[in-house]
Amino acid sequence: MIERIHTSDVEPDADEVAIAGHVHEIRDLGGLVFLIVRDREGLIQIVFKEEREPELFEAVQDVGAEDVVRVVGEPLESDQAPGGVEIAPTEYEVIDEADSPLPLEISKDIEVDLSTRLDNRALDLRKPETLAVFTLRSELITAMEEWFESEGYVDIKTPLISKGGAEGGAELFPILYYNQDAFLSQSPQLYKQMLMASGYEAVYETGTAFRAEDFATSRHVSEIAMFDVELAYIDDHDDVMDVQEESLRYALREVAENAERELDLLDVDLDVPEEDFPRITFDEALDILETEYGHFPDDPTDLDTKGEKLLGEHFEEQGHPAFFVVGYPDEKFYYMQDVPDDEIASRKFDLIYKGQELSSGGQREHDVERMVEVMEAEGVETANFEFYIEALSYGTPPHGGYGLGIDRLVQKVADLDNIKEAIMFPRDPNRLEP
Amino acid sequence: MIERIHTSDVEPDADEVAIAGHVHEIRDLGGLVFLIVRDREGLIQIVFKEEREPELFEAVQDVGAEDVVRVVGEPLESDQAPGGVEIAPTEYEVIDEADSPLPLEISKDIEVDLSTRLDNRALDLRKPETLAVFTLRSELITAMEEWFESEGYVDIKTPLISKGGAEGGAELFPILYYNQDAFLSQSPQLYKQMLMASGYEAVYETGTAFRAEDFATSRHVSEIAMFDVELAYIDDHDDVMDVQEESLRYALREVAENAERELDLLDVDLDVPEEDFPRITFDEALDILETEYGHFPDDPTDLDTKGEKLLGEHFEEQGHPAFFVVGYPDEKFYYMQDVPDDEIASRKFDLIYKGQELSSGGQREHDVERMVEVMEAEGVETANFEFYIEALSYGTPPHGGYGLGIDRLVQKVADLDNIKEAIMFPRDPNRLEP
Repeated sequence: MIERIHTSDVEPDADEVAIAGHVHEIRDLGGLVFLIVRDREGLIQIVFKEEREPELFEAVQDVGAEDVVRVVGEPLESDQAPGGVEIAPTEYEVIDEADSPLPLEISKDIEVDLSTRLDNRALDLRKPETLAVFTLRSELITAMEEWFESEGYVDIKTPLISKGGAEGGAELFPILYYNQDAFLSQSPQLYKQMLMASGYEAVYETGTAFRAEDFATSRHVSEIAMFDVELAYIDDHDDVMDVQEESLRYALREVAENAERELDLLDVDLDVPEEDFPRITFDEALDILETEYGHFPDDPTDLDTKGEKLLGEHFEEQGHPAFFVVGYPDEKFYYMQDVPDDEIASRKFDLIYKGQELSSGGQREHDVERMVEVMEAEGVETANFEFYIEALSYGTPPHGGYGLGIDRLVQKVADLDNIKEAIMFPRDPNRLEP
Repeated sequence: MIERIHTSDVEPDADEVAIAGHVHEIRDLGGLVFLIVRDREGLIQIVFKEEREPELFEAVQDVGAEDVVRVVGEPLESDQAPGGVEIAPTEYEVIDEADSPLPLEISKDIEVDLSTRLDNRALDLRKPETLAVFTLRSELITAMEEWFESEGYVDIKTPLISKGGAEGGAELFPILYYNQDAFLSQSPQLYKQMLMASGYEAVYETGTAFRAEDFATSRHVSEIAMFDVELAYIDDHDDVMDVQEESLRYALREVAENAERELDLLDVDLDVPEEDFPRITFDEALDILETEYGHFPDDPTDLDTKGEKLLGEHFEEQGHPAFFVVGYPDEKFYYMQDVPDDEIASRKFDLIYKGQELSSGGQREHDVERMVEVMEAEGVETANFEFYIEALSYGTPPHGGYGLGIDRLVQKVADLDNIKEAIMFPRDPNRLEP
């Protein structure tokens, strides 16, 4: 490896050090050149003095923004420098020159519209604030996976190319698979349920889902990072909510502890929901919306975006950034647990975090006879689901699970306006590059 | 949760316990019924005695293979029972009945061809040996990710839908993306390199790659689980090999320590390569093949499958299950580091483990001018790579990386004949279901 330490590890008055990174800023004050060099962990100031190091001073005249440089030198205490330390150089080398001008400013805090940022995403990703989003994202996913590993969940990988989709319909991306028609996966739903039948008991997957929706919102993308969970031997959907609640709390706690620098950069005061997440019924949710906000969702069986947002405000004020909505009107859907006649509510739930739905889940149907009845009543082509029905027909324990949108979670944790800011290289109906 | 403990946690002469699982085996000996129940952690024997528990004995007459049952009872020491303990039942409940007959035997060790196993994959996945493959796989990936987390790598997610492919050509799956033509990703190569330009310094991705190859081998599938790594500020490809070597050693060591039960079930004696992996040149490899085996690969610039296998034997005999091949003849490929004129070898490497290529990697080209020259000389349409060339043109540190085939690694670690056995629901030119 090229010898160097991270800028954040440079201590004033230590022995000579080597650092390397991109040139973030250049300030030329006559006989004095200040170079701010950026690496993944932060910034450091190098001071080139014509009198002190005439040769290096001469060499640094040609430096350009975003050049990759390596500097060896003595770290000195400095009140003016970022981090309270600057380097007096003894060696200076340009590793790779950057083209100029830059189509996007990295060091200056200029408001640029998202579309321009995404067009120049590789440059945009260099901004310390953007980098903070993705180190935070990495921490968040790792912490979540850690929780599931420690609870004995099996890390699974389900196929992304399939004959059909779990939800079906127009939202599927068609693909030519050798000489067959196939589709990109909407969700690992069927496969994770099959694994419950197969006795895997508790599984999770950090995967990808594809939705060919035609949208133009700040909450949708075509290629979605999903965190999917399924567990068996549950009593009902409350057990699934327990898992969702505990794992999310753990992950947020880890991020709050380990990603302080990133949260600071993003100006986020992360509120870890240490108390039990409220679990309110759909009727209670409607009540709050009506009495407090005079809001009535258009669809009387589901919450709308505005409703989620208002409920989010309501619970945030009470110290609950996260809460569940349960008790949705009973609806028939083949993989949803069919409830006894005397229960009017389904066993599904939604998790709302900071005013936005983050995950949906519930208890699944494990009784194949009931499932096929619902399929037939709803006009679902059972032939398309033969492999799934068959898999569940040889003894399946009661089970449930949920799918959590990772991109949305990152969006919410990092307080980003648009979900695309939470994705390195997002895909939408108009964006297929970079 | 339904109250129960795992079969592996049942201790003889403990208090009453509850277990739940699939009925693995039924043995009816007149006034005595032995039920072997299987959960994720193992098997346990329940003994129903007509004299001792006449009602439960009556009820268990209807039990069928693979029914999901829950049993409460007293654990008793038993020499004949698996694990040295059996349960004398006080409660017995069928949670879900299995259809019969089973299209595939779970409990009996009958040789079934792979195609039948995969047609009935959800049942095949119930076999203790198959389950062992996937718990081992989960442990292996988790351990690998752990190593990279502890080394400060950023966990990334690159897009799976793109305008083109890194390698290009006929191996791309076309997809209709809204009204545009697009393709499924062959590799995150371009994106992870762009992140090196963006200053992410060290990244890894547990992802998916798609290859529309028409094959019928035991080593290929169409949807591949990949473990991709890229790191910056390297001197050359040796730094990349160091990372590959250390992370693989760590992962294998963890599996050897934590997956003993699974390795036993699979009859694998896992040999952790504690010593330095040999790094031999391509010429040395050809030499060994010629002098020891009289084998000459058809292509004088690359190893063939047989050559890899023979070299694997050669090094395994010397106590090295894993080794690198470097010093391949210099070839021009746009993302490969162009070497100085006096170097005749490229900076790429292959890792061979147990006689099979597991990963390929090398130092990449970070000089955009040289890259474009190579592209033009090789007739690569630069217009297709504009976003990538542009990303790298604003200052890119020297970097390299590799892609490791997770499925192949699991195949090799678990000693499986066919790569498809290492994948829960594999995809090949003829298999799109389940």
